[in-house]
Amino acid sequence: MLPEKEQQRIIEQPEQLIEAIQQLVVRGAPAIGVAAAYGLCLAIRGCKDIDTVRSRFREALPALRSARPTAVNLQHMVDRMADLESSAECEHLDGAALKERLLSEARAIDEQDQQCCQAIGESGASLIADGATVLTHCNAGALATAGTGTALSVLYEAWKQGKRFQVLAGETRPLLQGSRLTAWELHKNGIPVEVICDGAAGSFFYNGEIDVVITGSDRVAANGDAANKIGTYTIASLAKAHQVPFYIAAPSTSFDLSIASGDEIPIEQRSADEIWSPTSQQQPPEGIGHRNPAFDVTPASHIAGWITEVGILHPPFEEIRR
Amino acid sequence: MLPEKEQQRIIEQPEQLIEAIQQLVVRGAPAIGVAAAYGLCLAIRGCKDIDTVRSRFREALPALRSARPTAVNLQHMVDRMADLESSAECEHLDGAALKERLLSEARAIDEQDQQCCQAIGESGASLIADGATVLTHCNAGALATAGTGTALSVLYEAWKQGKRFQVLAGETRPLLQGSRLTAWELHKNGIPVEVICDGAAGSFFYNGEIDVVITGSDRVAANGDAANKIGTYTIASLAKAHQVPFYIAAPSTSFDLSIASGDEIPIEQRSADEIWSPTSQQQPPEGIGHRNPAFDVTPASHIAGWITEVGILHPPFEEIRR
Repeated sequence: MLPEKEQQRIIEQPEQLIEAIQQLVVRGAPAIGVAAAYGLCLAIRGCKDIDTVRSRFREALPALRSARPTAVNLQHMVDRMADLESSAECEHLDGAALKERLLSEARAIDEQDQQCCQAIGESGASLIADGATVLTHCNAGALATAGTGTALSVLYEAWKQGKRFQVLAGETRPLLQGSRLTAWELHKNGIPVEVICDGAAGSFFYNGEIDVVITGSDRVAANGDAANKIGTYTIASLAKAHQVPFYIAAPSTSFDLSIASGDEIPIEQRSADEIWSPTSQQQPPEGIGHRNPAFDVTPASHIAGWITEVGILHPPFEEIRR
Repeated sequence: MLPEKEQQRIIEQPEQLIEAIQQLVVRGAPAIGVAAAYGLCLAIRGCKDIDTVRSRFREALPALRSARPTAVNLQHMVDRMADLESSAECEHLDGAALKERLLSEARAIDEQDQQCCQAIGESGASLIADGATVLTHCNAGALATAGTGTALSVLYEAWKQGKRFQVLAGETRPLLQGSRLTAWELHKNGIPVEVICDGAAGSFFYNGEIDVVITGSDRVAANGDAANKIGTYTIASLAKAHQVPFYIAAPSTSFDLSIASGDEIPIEQRSADEIWSPTSQQQPPEGIGHRNPAFDVTPASHIAGWITEVGILHPPFEEIRR
């Protein structure tokens, strides 16, 4: 509903959370991961005996884990909760104690994401020069995380350090997270922002008006290839052609070192209605097709650095190998 | 109103035509040029004596000539009409005869544009391979000309020759000429078309799904630099990075050999409302800026060929120097 209306939705059942994730009420790779951890706690709320707690918890895992395919945080956080539940630490707990332990883990995930955001901001702030124009895409801000964001946290931290700069926000069709969320968030925090249509990015690069690009990422492969919102690769390709540095900002929880390259990242295909909706309340005209991949992959060759909570990294990411 | 509603607007005064051009009721470089020639005839309709015909005609020139700045056809066609009016040929005509002569010139301009479209199609059809996927941007079709279009005429002719291919139409934000006009036009003519968001183009190039790109152009400079709808340069840059040929299709009336390069092409800046409108009927949120250039310039280095009514040309365009 942003930017016209700010509304909070209270979610009480894991099914409601899955729907909220699929409808992008909760979106942004880190925010989805945190929400999923809490979603598992919702699944066992009200359960008393240990067998019911364990069975309800395990039943909830698959649907939450696969609510959306591209961002890996969702899988990582569901796996972290699942590993805890089946760990030696939890083996002899009764129902109440296990529920308490799982909730404390979800809270730790939440807290750690907030700390990650702050640390990502501190890692990347030096990349923003005073007077720079920064291009970003989609929303990798507070509305995408439990904290202050990933790409936008870098901007918030640089601004806090006294640097003054301006942001071009790609509107990010089809769902306009750039114009609806990023512009709203930056303006609320006092950072000058102008919205551009996605296709216009080329002309701003051509005119030398963009100094640096920072976006988030939903999944980074072992070789550095990074999936992010559709349109990111177009910008990265333009940045490379115009020798403008392009950075990814993401917590280590968005890195999937189990896959060799971006070729292995599943790309969610979404409904044609998302493309068609701005022009009409009606269905797309009959006979006209639509292609609506929700993400694209930017190859490592186009990325100047991977801004994480432990610094600006490069493949093979030894600093975060678990 | 397309694709939901097809409606014809009857224009009786040059002022109405200027408004229609500025609101994009009449759009597309060739269509604007043809319309402007008829607009000058509207200005003298009802005039009787030769002095009134001449003075009304001359008074109408500046506003029509500058209704929109980027497409050069408008200026060329207004100049052609003005040159005729002040020529030796028209020196001794009476009011009725001059009006008749000017109307026949406007009709010739209209007719020539239709012939141009057909010839452009024949010039370019060989570039479309059977089984190809063609990317186009904005609308360079029948809705942009007096005939069958420029870029789309190439597709219509290739289809007529029995080639079977598919088209990806970039939706072309902010005003969605791709999804509203090009998709409608191609589908109506039986050519398979799928709409994509502009930012998604990169992912289709990256996946090797685009074989050739053809767009129109609003003004081509002497060195081959070509202005076209915002977003065209982004696609051209992607095409170059992925070694996919990128062609401009335009009649010689869109060539402005009086300017050396694209740096001299004035780029129209349009209202922020165009960007904001799809999400809301309201004004853009206060404090959030917008940048809305309506065109961009693709440098000649990114263009594989300039498809015209006299063949596929290259700078310095000796074939069409007047």
